[in-house]
Order: sequence, then structure tokens, then C-alpha cells
Amino acid sequence: MAEMKCFTTQIQIAVEQGVGIVDITAKLQEAVQESGIANGSLQGFCIGSTGSLTCIEYEPGVISDLVRSINELAPPDREYEHEKAWMDGNGHSHVQAALMGPSLDIPIRNGRCSLGTWQQVVAINHDVGPRTRKIEITAMGI
Amino acid sequence: MAEMKCFTTQIQIAVEQGVGIVDITAKLQEAVQESGIANGSLQGFCIGSTGSLTCIEYEPGVISDLVRSINELAPPDREYEHEKAWMDGNGHSHVQAALMGPSLDIPIRNGRCSLGTWQQVVAINHDVGPRTRKIEITAMGI
Amino acid sequence: MAEMKCFTTQIQIAVEQGVGIVDITAKLQEAVQESGIANGSLQGFCIGSTGSLTCIEYEPGVISDLVRSINELAPPDREYEHEKAWMDGNGHSHVQAALMGPSLDIPIRNGRCSLGTWQQVVAINHDVGPRTRKIEITAMGI
Repeated sequence: MAEMKCFTTQIQIAVEQGVGIVDITAKLQEAVQESGIANGSLQGFCIGSTGSLTCIEYEPGVISDLVRSINELAPPDREYEHEKAWMDGNGHSHVQAALMGPSLDIPIRNGRCSLGTWQQVVAINHDVGPRTRKIEITAMGI
Repeated sequence: MAEMKCFTTQIQIAVEQGVGIVDITAKLQEAVQESGIANGSLQGFCIGSTGSLTCIEYEPGVISDLVRSINELAPPDREYEHEKAWMDGNGHSHVQAALMGPSLDIPIRNGRCSLGTWQQVVAINHDVGPRTRKIEITAMGI
Repeated sequence: MAEMKCFTTQIQIAVEQGVGIVDITAKLQEAVQESGIANGSLQGFCIGSTGSLTCIEYEPGVISDLVRSINELAPPDREYEHEKAWMDGNGHSHVQAALMGPSLDIPIRNGRCSLGTWQQVVAINHDVGPRTRKIEITAMGI
């Protein structure tokens, strides 16, 4: 049996103010190629408590539909207890990110991320200003 | 120390139109047995942008309660920008799936999925018609 | 190349009745140190269908903001079909936990969990009474 490998890297991606959503599929694919792993899985993790990762069809219409639903989970125009501690106006950003979750697993098959045709991986910035989001990538497999 | 293994397979499961929910615990357990892995973890990933994975007690009452809450996250009877691109009536399906997330990690202990007694793994179809959902399975461990 | 390792352990943590939220970052960090893994990833999984894991800034204000939003996803003061099966008053707990998800991946870098400065890992108890939550930890890497 081939010996297992573990490959780690970090990608950085500029994202507009929240709810900002960027397609990172090509960057993950580059990481998989660099890893030399043919079959296994890739873990992505968004550093920082106002960012998250998920998958969606990267099409402008459904992206705006997703933004609407995320802003209903924790509306920006509401009072947040977090403001009493920090007064930085991003209480909703923290709650949205905690509900979405920072981590995601993508299968690697034949040296590529195994995704549906209309399924892309996105990084989400929930914060009130633009952010350069750091995403830790860990790929493991054979 | 035992050498680490990486085992990959794909399961396919027929799921009713959205929100359709199917217990896949037994199929994951079969994959773990086939892998020969005693201790490690299993990553499941639902291929396609209108499907998701999570855990719940697989009991008809709470399944219908979950369907209700998922349909409140992104109600089917609402206008979606996604319709302007595709007109296939599944804007809510994409948003629901993105909020739930396509991936899940299950621990493997003593050759079995380590779950609570009342905790099952489910595949969810959010789309407007029945679908055969493809789920990539990656098991790693010793 | 260094040989890959797989380390497994279980942590137990007392959590108040739902929505109860406890910072488990230090316990995960202890597990990483015990594993001897320098670079890879750690999978956490909450055993039981009324618990979940996520990340948030562990600050009392935003924790109460998160509790509010979780209780809006599946309000406790509503009728649940789950009650007809079990009458144990925790239908909302099951739905909340299924929406949040039981699993989380944390990157390991230089022998530590790689998190943002204001980003902590939390275990959530959604049930109607206090619970000792069991969390399976699987760390893999080199």
C-alpha cells in the first residue's frame, strides 16, 4: 500500500464586507495538485471568528439569495450584547459565522477535489469591513 | 505503531423530493468494516449543491420537526434571484443546502462508527424532485 | 518524510441546560500535545443527538447573542412532533443540534490548534437538562 501523506498550506483571499462570498475552488484545487495526493480528503478552516466556509453553486442570483438568508439568521440591524463589550458593530457577524461553521471537508479523488458540476467551495466574510481571510488547508491521503 | 490506511468509496442513495431525509448509518458502517480501519475517522461529503449531511435521532416525529425548521431557513414559497438564471424552481434548495453544509466527520472506534444510541447520520435532499444522492466516503486511521 | 500518526481520545465536559455553551479549546490543545502531532488536523465529534460543536469568540455578550439566534432556529416554546413519541420536552434540542452539526475540524500547526486570536472552540448542549457531553477527538498528521 502507498504511504500516506499529510500536506499543509495556507491560502489568503480578499473578501468584501459582510456578507461577502468568494469562490475558492480553484485555489483548493491548486493545493491538491501541490500536495501530490491522489485520493484522500482536504480540510479547510477559516481563521478568525467572523468567517466561514461552505459549498454552493457560484452563480450571482443564488449568492444573493444566500446572503439574504444568512442576514435573517442574525440580522445586522438588531441589538447585540457583543456591542456592550467591544462596540465594533459586528455582533451579527460573530453569530452568523458560528452558525455557519469555520470548517469543511472536501474529498480528493484522482488528484482533484471531487465536487458536483454546479458545486463550488466558498469563503464567507461576515464582518463589517473587507477582510483578507486566511484559510488553513490540510490534505491527507495516498 | 500500525501503519495508517486511507480507504475511499462512494455510496448512492435514493432520496425523496425536498426536504427528503434518509438514514445512511448502516451504509457508513459497512464502509468502515470494508476499510479494515479500527480507529480513526470517516469523512462523508454529499456531491451536488442541493444536498447535505447531518446527524439526528431518526424518528419520524423529529424528522418532520427538522423539515419544518429547514423550510423556515429558506422557504420554498418565496422569490429567489436564482430563478432568474435557471427557472428550475429550486432556489430555496440551494440556500438550504449551503446553510446545512455538505460534509460531516464521524469518529471510528473499535471498527465501528462511534455515535450516540439515538444519533443517526442522515443524507438530506433539498431539491424539488427525487434524487439519487452520491456520497463520497473517505476513511483514514489505523 | 515523517510517518503519519493517528491519535484518538475522548473528553467529557459538563454543560448547563440548553442552550449551554462551554469553551473546550484548552482541552483540545491538551489532546494535540498528548498526540505528539506537529502538523495535521483534529476532528471533534459530539456524541449524542442534542449536542453540537462550533467556533466563536468566547465572550459573554456574543455567547448570549448566539443563544438567542439558536433559540430562533428551533424555538423551545413551540409544538414538536417529537413530543408525541417521547414526551421529554426536547424536540427543539434535537432540531437545533441537527442544524448546528456535531462535527468540526481544527488544523494543527507547530503542535498547536491553529485558531484566530478571538476564536475559540465550543461545545453546545441543546438539551433541557444539564449534560456531561462526550466528545470524540481524532488527531491525524505528522
